[in-house]
Amino acid sequence: MPEIRSNPITGDWVIIATERAKRPEEFTQRTARPELPARAPACPFCPGNEGMTPEEQYRIPAPDGGWLVRAVPNRFAALTSEGAAERHVNGFRTCLDGVGLHEVIVETPAHDATMARLALPHLEQVLHVYRHRLRAFYKDRRIEHVILFKNHGEAAGTSLVHPHSQIVGMPVLPNQLRARLEEAMRHWGNFGECLYCRTLREELRDGARVVAQNASFAAFVPYAALSPFHVWVFPRHHIACFGDVTDPQLADLAVVLRDVLLRLHVGLNDPDYNFVIRSLSPQEGALKYFHWYISLVPRVTKSAGFELGTGMFINTAMPERSAEFLRCVSLPG
Amino acid sequence: MPEIRSNPITGDWVIIATERAKRPEEFTQRTARPELPARAPACPFCPGNEGMTPEEQYRIPAPDGGWLVRAVPNRFAALTSEGAAERHVNGFRTCLDGVGLHEVIVETPAHDATMARLALPHLEQVLHVYRHRLRAFYKDRRIEHVILFKNHGEAAGTSLVHPHSQIVGMPVLPNQLRARLEEAMRHWGNFGECLYCRTLREELRDGARVVAQNASFAAFVPYAALSPFHVWVFPRHHIACFGDVTDPQLADLAVVLRDVLLRLHVGLNDPDYNFVIRSLSPQEGALKYFHWYISLVPRVTKSAGFELGTGMFINTAMPERSAEFLRCVSLPG
Repeated sequence: MPEIRSNPITGDWVIIATERAKRPEEFTQRTARPELPARAPACPFCPGNEGMTPEEQYRIPAPDGGWLVRAVPNRFAALTSEGAAERHVNGFRTCLDGVGLHEVIVETPAHDATMARLALPHLEQVLHVYRHRLRAFYKDRRIEHVILFKNHGEAAGTSLVHPHSQIVGMPVLPNQLRARLEEAMRHWGNFGECLYCRTLREELRDGARVVAQNASFAAFVPYAALSPFHVWVFPRHHIACFGDVTDPQLADLAVVLRDVLLRLHVGLNDPDYNFVIRSLSPQEGALKYFHWYISLVPRVTKSAGFELGTGMFINTAMPERSAEFLRCVSLPG
Repeated sequence: MPEIRSNPITGDWVIIATERAKRPEEFTQRTARPELPARAPACPFCPGNEGMTPEEQYRIPAPDGGWLVRAVPNRFAALTSEGAAERHVNGFRTCLDGVGLHEVIVETPAHDATMARLALPHLEQVLHVYRHRLRAFYKDRRIEHVILFKNHGEAAGTSLVHPHSQIVGMPVLPNQLRARLEEAMRHWGNFGECLYCRTLREELRDGARVVAQNASFAAFVPYAALSPFHVWVFPRHHIACFGDVTDPQLADLAVVLRDVLLRLHVGLNDPDYNFVIRSLSPQEGALKYFHWYISLVPRVTKSAGFELGTGMFINTAMPERSAEFLRCVSLPG
């Protein structure tokens, strides 16, 4: 019997289509990744080609005089950094000039690396750059919202294979975020508790969907996961802005994130995935009712007309089985 | 300069990324469709294989004793037709058994047909079946919402090439619909007008994004189109439920829908697309503030982490240019 589960954080219903359900192994990435060289002469993110990117905004230097991680403006930015963020209201129509910030975070000099296999201290440096750029973006008074995301693999929409993430600062609040905030505020109003803290508490008490945890973070497959192996990573302490994460917490986050990425990498043969960091601004960091978190969605199924027309998802794997599968992956070393 | 446009109906912002913009021709479908036979022995939707589908629910008979259009339950239904639609609330969790209705509408006996090239009277019969099944689904007291959709081509998520559409009846209202209703109700409350009627009036007055129209329907690229060649088809008379469309209106809808599909087919070499019919139930048919409509999204670009994390879209074509391109396609005959 299929199940329809409610996600209290998004307000969405998800169909867990058990009749169509597959065994976890069936979601294994089938297309083999191409063999990559350690350096690619034409890759704008490879060492030696720094001149191919717009002017570097930040870097983690390497002991050899090079760099470990770089942040550079996106050459094909969706938004332009010059101009004013003013709404133009013309009768029924509202628009703004497309001003904003859009950078690429090059995660490593190694063209053939993958985030899942970065050394732990290196991944921690990537997260350090994430935090630095998020804070910097929010210093721009035009920026209303910043989204950090990673596209891994073709099905996840990436066009360059060299490991990188992206950060976009926008002069508007996405409607999806506004809806999340409204749900969270309503829950706080009704129950006097943070909806995210409650969700985390329930997940840890239940345990069936937990994938990894340490003192500061917990990773779990949500009760109403929107796809197979959908994973949320929540900070265990209430905190609304990713920019407010402390250094020790960042180290703990690297451990949990790496653990999740490695389990996916080993268990499903390096699947395509997207992850996003949902966070408010530092000015909103003290909000009682919102919680920053990471949402990771492996691209193992396709969305079609049903999803377009309803905003609902059909998940062809039981969330509990997805979590169990990930927990049982034997990690190297 | 890119632009950020607001969609008053969904509340979403869309980035019109002019810096990345392509010429309309660049969105042409590149992968050639495989040559198909008129009948395929293993296809469950081909004549002679009627026994391969669950029991037929409705058909339009053909003069030769066969059929023109059939509605049959989906063999791999996301929801099951037996059972009660009761919410189970277990502390913090809410779920239902996955009960509901899920049918396939086989649009033609011809395995190698495409909806865009169906004869007009035939397309009208397909729409007749849509209306019949939607009305029938809503007679089931467990059904809260019905969505009708079509997946055309691999990028649109279809698995069987024989032309077909799908209809799903769910025991819950998708959150996306609830949000649309809330926006529409707020607009009615503020301005005393249907948000959809207003949108249509503005589009017809402006004219720059109109693709096709007749006495009962208008097709246009929305001002804040979420992707290149995104098209909305609106009834010109206020009506909230697709099931209430009259026979003459259905004939007019066939004309406009066929016109749009043919323009896409000819202009972009038969691109992959999804369309959905957003409609309320017959019981809600008289609502003053909502309007049923068709949303058609060609799958010419990919969504990635940005879309996942914000719910916003980046459209790499100016909506006005998409519309102009479609208007200028020379149709055969």
